[in-house]
Amino acid sequence: MTVLVALRDWDIDAWVARLRRELPGRNIVTLGEPFDRRAVHYAVSWKHPPGSLAGLPNLSAIFSLGAGVDHLMGDDRLPDVPIMRVVDPDLTSRMSEYIILHCLKILRQQMRYVRQQAERLWEDDRDQPAAADVRVGIMGMGVLGQDAARKLRMIGFDVAGWSRTARSASSVVIEGVEVFTGEEGLAPFLARTDILVCLLPLTDDTRGILDSKLLSGLARTGRTGGAHLINAGRGGLQVEADILACLDDGTLASATLDVFQTEPLPQASPLWTHPRVDITPHNAAMSAPATIARLVAEQIARAERGEPFQHAVDRSRGY
Amino acid sequence: MTVLVALRDWDIDAWVARLRRELPGRNIVTLGEPFDRRAVHYAVSWKHPPGSLAGLPNLSAIFSLGAGVDHLMGDDRLPDVPIMRVVDPDLTSRMSEYIILHCLKILRQQMRYVRQQAERLWEDDRDQPAAADVRVGIMGMGVLGQDAARKLRMIGFDVAGWSRTARSASSVVIEGVEVFTGEEGLAPFLARTDILVCLLPLTDDTRGILDSKLLSGLARTGRTGGAHLINAGRGGLQVEADILACLDDGTLASATLDVFQTEPLPQASPLWTHPRVDITPHNAAMSAPATIARLVAEQIARAERGEPFQHAVDRSRGY
Repeated sequence: MTVLVALRDWDIDAWVARLRRELPGRNIVTLGEPFDRRAVHYAVSWKHPPGSLAGLPNLSAIFSLGAGVDHLMGDDRLPDVPIMRVVDPDLTSRMSEYIILHCLKILRQQMRYVRQQAERLWEDDRDQPAAADVRVGIMGMGVLGQDAARKLRMIGFDVAGWSRTARSASSVVIEGVEVFTGEEGLAPFLARTDILVCLLPLTDDTRGILDSKLLSGLARTGRTGGAHLINAGRGGLQVEADILACLDDGTLASATLDVFQTEPLPQASPLWTHPRVDITPHNAAMSAPATIARLVAEQIARAERGEPFQHAVDRSRGY
Repeated sequence: MTVLVALRDWDIDAWVARLRRELPGRNIVTLGEPFDRRAVHYAVSWKHPPGSLAGLPNLSAIFSLGAGVDHLMGDDRLPDVPIMRVVDPDLTSRMSEYIILHCLKILRQQMRYVRQQAERLWEDDRDQPAAADVRVGIMGMGVLGQDAARKLRMIGFDVAGWSRTARSASSVVIEGVEVFTGEEGLAPFLARTDILVCLLPLTDDTRGILDSKLLSGLARTGRTGGAHLINAGRGGLQVEADILACLDDGTLASATLDVFQTEPLPQASPLWTHPRVDITPHNAAMSAPATIARLVAEQIARAERGEPFQHAVDRSRGY
């Protein structure tokens, strides 16, 4: 029984070593070597070359090495077998760390105090709002969005969520957190939001959703001195030219971006030097590779005990 | 029945107006005007001039306008009446905002990414620790310390506390948070702490406690690249010359200071420009003045209904 490792842009030797450790006795092969295509039962993918998983007659499952599966969905020869994504409690917790850090950075005007220190300026904001005075809106109320909502609420923020589909929204019950749904819920959700946190999956329905039209719907009369965007989802969700225009015309007060349309962010991007843009290098929530390898091994063990896979992707939704 | 407002370094007219609003029908007087000393039943103090509350034969209580009462304790002619401090849930929540922000700033190396952005550098830390890998230690487990401990724990940090007295420690039960006590508990508490958060009250026993000796007891082999100090208590707790020496000899990796031995921090202080010091202007937790005025009015109303005061200070402990 063979496991095929099909990766791009990631250290393949390290992944093979980790999977060998977690799956002793299995044959772990890579695309770059000859292997028996009929022996492949499982594929592990991160941005695999399109078509490279076709022609594997006994393939029974594909495991994405990340929470997102948008990197798989562009492959029109993707075999029709279950696709599982990584749901790592550690990754969820790290994403919430990132979101809480940047919501508090905005609330407590941390970059203002960094600048004041450089000028030896002792001056505080006598009208500093509390977290309860600030409305955070989370787009995407899956596992990550729900964890962030719960923790932001506990810190005191006024939190709401938005789900694209009613099916997703109905499963979310967090005390004090209203969840808006669908096209008709988007405008009222944005109108009550000072800090927009985007955690949506990247699908045909969400590509480019963070554009001027959407951003202009945010509240601008709240206690945070304008509307703020935090995108820790996928770069393909945002239209960077629109974000820059919105920053310059006052539609947005700041943007905190962990993801970009092109990564690494090109040297020529004006985002690098914009005074109200904070950039992190797509590291909001990185799973430890050892953890992911263990989760893949656990999924294979479940299947071989006759139990269903966990965290299967719904291809019709694209996540 | 008269209320005497005795303040220094704070806008007295605004306080008189707020107290008049919350205490309609009372006579609100200030030190700068003539008043009948026998009519004064209550005093409201923030850094009142020493001796100015003496000679008030019918004084029944003193209300501090802040959580700390160290500003009162230096007055050796302070009348022997109950002293109450402000315990404002909003202030507690704001202090936790500050502590969480700065613990996450350290965990997620935020200042590194600010510097990298200035250099258009796309580089992440593949070995980024999770909150669970980082040990926060809170000195001072009163209302503020307990709230911070509970919230940091929920975010995932490995949290412990330290109380100077066993009496204070015994009342603290937070799941997963060990509370060390007294002189003998200090060394083991420091030895398991990567990020030290100081919220102690300033008393004769705690003055200058944050010195080289104490700081050298912190862990330096943890996942945060050295030991970190966050002082959001009182400036008098810290020995700034020692903190600078510890930063320079590697005992401390960073210091985040909201309070200082002299405030505002003098222009000549080398803390302003130290690359591993973050300064905020004593604004970690400011109560809204309107809230404090309301809390003082509620205490007076309690007393006049024959109920005991809340949040009375124990003079033998000094807080």
